[in-house]
Amino acid sequence: MNYKMVIHTTGKIIGVEAICLLVSAAVSLIYMESSGIWLLATAVFGGLLFLLSRFFKPKDEIFFAKEGMVTVALSWLILSLIGALPFYLSGEIKGFINCFFETASGLTTTGASVVPNVETLSHGIAFWRSLTHWIGGMGVLVLVMAIAPSGSGRSIHMMRAEMPGPVVGKLVPKAKTTARLLYIIYIALTLVLIGLLFFGGMPVFDSIIHAFGTAGTGGFGIKADSIASYSPYLQWVLTAFMVLFGINFNLFYFILIGKFISTLKSSELWTYVGIIVSAIILITVNVSSLYTSIGEAIRHSAFQVASIISTTGYATANFDAWPVFSKAILLILMFLGGCAGSTAGGLKISRFVLLCKTAKNRIKHVVHPRTVKSVRFEGKAVDNETLTGVSSYFIIYCMCIVVLFLILCLEPFSLESNLSATAATFNNVGPGFGAAAVNYNGYSYLSKICMSFAMLLGRLEIYPILILFMPATWTKK
Amino acid sequence: MNYKMVIHTTGKIIGVEAICLLVSAAVSLIYMESSGIWLLATAVFGGLLFLLSRFFKPKDEIFFAKEGMVTVALSWLILSLIGALPFYLSGEIKGFINCFFETASGLTTTGASVVPNVETLSHGIAFWRSLTHWIGGMGVLVLVMAIAPSGSGRSIHMMRAEMPGPVVGKLVPKAKTTARLLYIIYIALTLVLIGLLFFGGMPVFDSIIHAFGTAGTGGFGIKADSIASYSPYLQWVLTAFMVLFGINFNLFYFILIGKFISTLKSSELWTYVGIIVSAIILITVNVSSLYTSIGEAIRHSAFQVASIISTTGYATANFDAWPVFSKAILLILMFLGGCAGSTAGGLKISRFVLLCKTAKNRIKHVVHPRTVKSVRFEGKAVDNETLTGVSSYFIIYCMCIVVLFLILCLEPFSLESNLSATAATFNNVGPGFGAAAVNYNGYSYLSKICMSFAMLLGRLEIYPILILFMPATWTKK
Repeated sequence: MNYKMVIHTTGKIIGVEAICLLVSAAVSLIYMESSGIWLLATAVFGGLLFLLSRFFKPKDEIFFAKEGMVTVALSWLILSLIGALPFYLSGEIKGFINCFFETASGLTTTGASVVPNVETLSHGIAFWRSLTHWIGGMGVLVLVMAIAPSGSGRSIHMMRAEMPGPVVGKLVPKAKTTARLLYIIYIALTLVLIGLLFFGGMPVFDSIIHAFGTAGTGGFGIKADSIASYSPYLQWVLTAFMVLFGINFNLFYFILIGKFISTLKSSELWTYVGIIVSAIILITVNVSSLYTSIGEAIRHSAFQVASIISTTGYATANFDAWPVFSKAILLILMFLGGCAGSTAGGLKISRFVLLCKTAKNRIKHVVHPRTVKSVRFEGKAVDNETLTGVSSYFIIYCMCIVVLFLILCLEPFSLESNLSATAATFNNVGPGFGAAAVNYNGYSYLSKICMSFAMLLGRLEIYPILILFMPATWTKK
Repeated sequence: MNYKMVIHTTGKIIGVEAICLLVSAAVSLIYMESSGIWLLATAVFGGLLFLLSRFFKPKDEIFFAKEGMVTVALSWLILSLIGALPFYLSGEIKGFINCFFETASGLTTTGASVVPNVETLSHGIAFWRSLTHWIGGMGVLVLVMAIAPSGSGRSIHMMRAEMPGPVVGKLVPKAKTTARLLYIIYIALTLVLIGLLFFGGMPVFDSIIHAFGTAGTGGFGIKADSIASYSPYLQWVLTAFMVLFGINFNLFYFILIGKFISTLKSSELWTYVGIIVSAIILITVNVSSLYTSIGEAIRHSAFQVASIISTTGYATANFDAWPVFSKAILLILMFLGGCAGSTAGGLKISRFVLLCKTAKNRIKHVVHPRTVKSVRFEGKAVDNETLTGVSSYFIIYCMCIVVLFLILCLEPFSLESNLSATAATFNNVGPGFGAAAVNYNGYSYLSKICMSFAMLLGRLEIYPILILFMPATWTKK
């Protein structure tokens, strides 16, 4: 293990967090809030840690898959711990475990909250809470890579650990340039969204908060009823952007460089759109009697489907009170999640497509044992290594869900609540059903710690966090 | 497709059913019940179909995997349809779809019932209902192979389709001899169980019924409260035998021929035992406050764990009222099921072990991408084909569950009820929670048809039923 390199890189990431805290402190200053002091103090603390880490100058930059994953896992854990400090020190969220849960939920773009009344938060703290979504969405390491002066040749190991999806999509040969391109697209889309919200009548602060929550597919808001009190126009804008942020960012890049055909040929995109449209139709029919007009039913159904499949977690309606069929669809969408290479969580559509193709291939193989057919995806033959990787990931994914579900069932809540809480935290969605519908305050500290790790497991796609806690990682060979 | 061979073999299987119906009619005669007429009539009808099928003399006995699976799927479907006739004609179960559901539930050893009050059934009908468990448990085709005069060399394809587990375990080179050995062990164990129940004070009829239900890991009984009203001794005997019938029958054969070491080395067996013991301990602790003594808590917990993991479905307690943690464990056990090569349903322990090993291997591979480790199971290296088969089966298994769950959610029952109904029917367990706890009468005909097919899908391990309904199977090449 190249410890110095791990510490050096983690230090850089803490530096980025310190800058973000500084920005949040500035917001506090604008609104003349005392909570700004704690944001500033934490920023200074982060800055000191960053400076301290500069003393650990690595002899070489050799970085293997293991080091890459350990760095990512460690960074996210430390970011969650440091990021929790302003919540704790300002007293706006009680109990350090609650603060840690809230920050992990923010960074992993889950959006599950333990704040009893979100409208009581000060502007600076609310801004910091939502900013964690935004930096967590595209990845903190990717951000470091985009802005760091020197690009390590081995940094793809870290990018792979932080970027969601079965295969990491390098847009251009150099990882650093890819990271920059991704962030440029991300920033541009966020700015467009802020504009559309602001000119649609949303106050500027609200626009920024909801743009952060949508871009990171997080879901933290500043209203007790989430998005319900905003106008239908604003709800539709958010619906569209939640869908957009669930799309593989490579496609935006293809559009930018004029490769429209490549974009239109993406089977992941069409599967994603197909699932969204089908889900909206089924839910609209199922809930139509609850609303005064079919338009209203479509609006709520579209908003909720977009919110859940992109694992954002905003709400315009109390979907916990919807009929069981609609809830079942939403529960399944929680597990599916958005496209690979987006800011969404869940299993990812590309994995789902590859799993379907594996299943289809298997059935053919059972009928005709001697024929061997290769699986094709996005116009290319998929090698066996990738397919085995996806199948194995799915197995491990299911095992994580079972273990988390069993732990949460120590709580006195219904099976439905606990299952939805499992799905909503592990897949980085946010709200669930029943006891997990509004906030996670009812759950015990033990459950909150488990869910915090589940959110990190889900966001980093399991392996980094697993490897961080495997004794074998830390023993010398 | 060798149609004549398919019809010829299906005919033989119907012949076996006719004999079983005749035996049930004899039971009716003993008790002087009029329902015997309908059992006899159906037996005669089955006999006629058998004779008719003799006219389709196949030119050759060439049989490929596809034909094997189509024959098995078709046979089980037809057996369910014919077996439903006595219930329907005698009027003891109302509605033909209910009768079909009950028979499919019996043959697939599910034990899910639509009979509102099982104590009103006549002896002959109750006997037939439980006999379906017994013949379905070890497999009707295996029975045909054991008793058929000529053993086709290709019959392994059918045996593979009917026997549960990732690899069919031929005990001896000849499939026919294997089938005979399996049935001899099966009959011997059933007789021992009848003896233990009878000498423990259970009436002879009850003993036979419960031995059928236990041997087939089915769960049909003749009391409204299942096993609750029988003595603790009888409950413990049933607990032990439910566990026994969930064990791979190959192990009994090894014991018979003196290979004790082979038996003790079985990692599937020890995983099975380990899961059972852990589940009993956890549930006992969780439910201890509900019972007057720790002994009583252990008894109910052991009985329920054995009943659910072996996918039998008998009950001594109202486990639907147990705390959510115990219910969550039972729900997980429903999916696990018993060992391969037993009469139990579910995913099977051997698959679970192989999935765990695949997951472990994958994590190692992620850390050290260049090392390739082979997976070992039961002392042998497992080839990649088997591992891919198990992973793919798991993927298809999960997809079936999601589809069935979504259809059942059209019902007005809770997510929990519908999820447990999905698990309980697809894994051939029987009772679930909530609306599925006592019987399935509340579900609509559409759901009942879907659940009937789910039971067949689960019992035949998906492929045969899927292939039966694939258009490609029936088109000429």
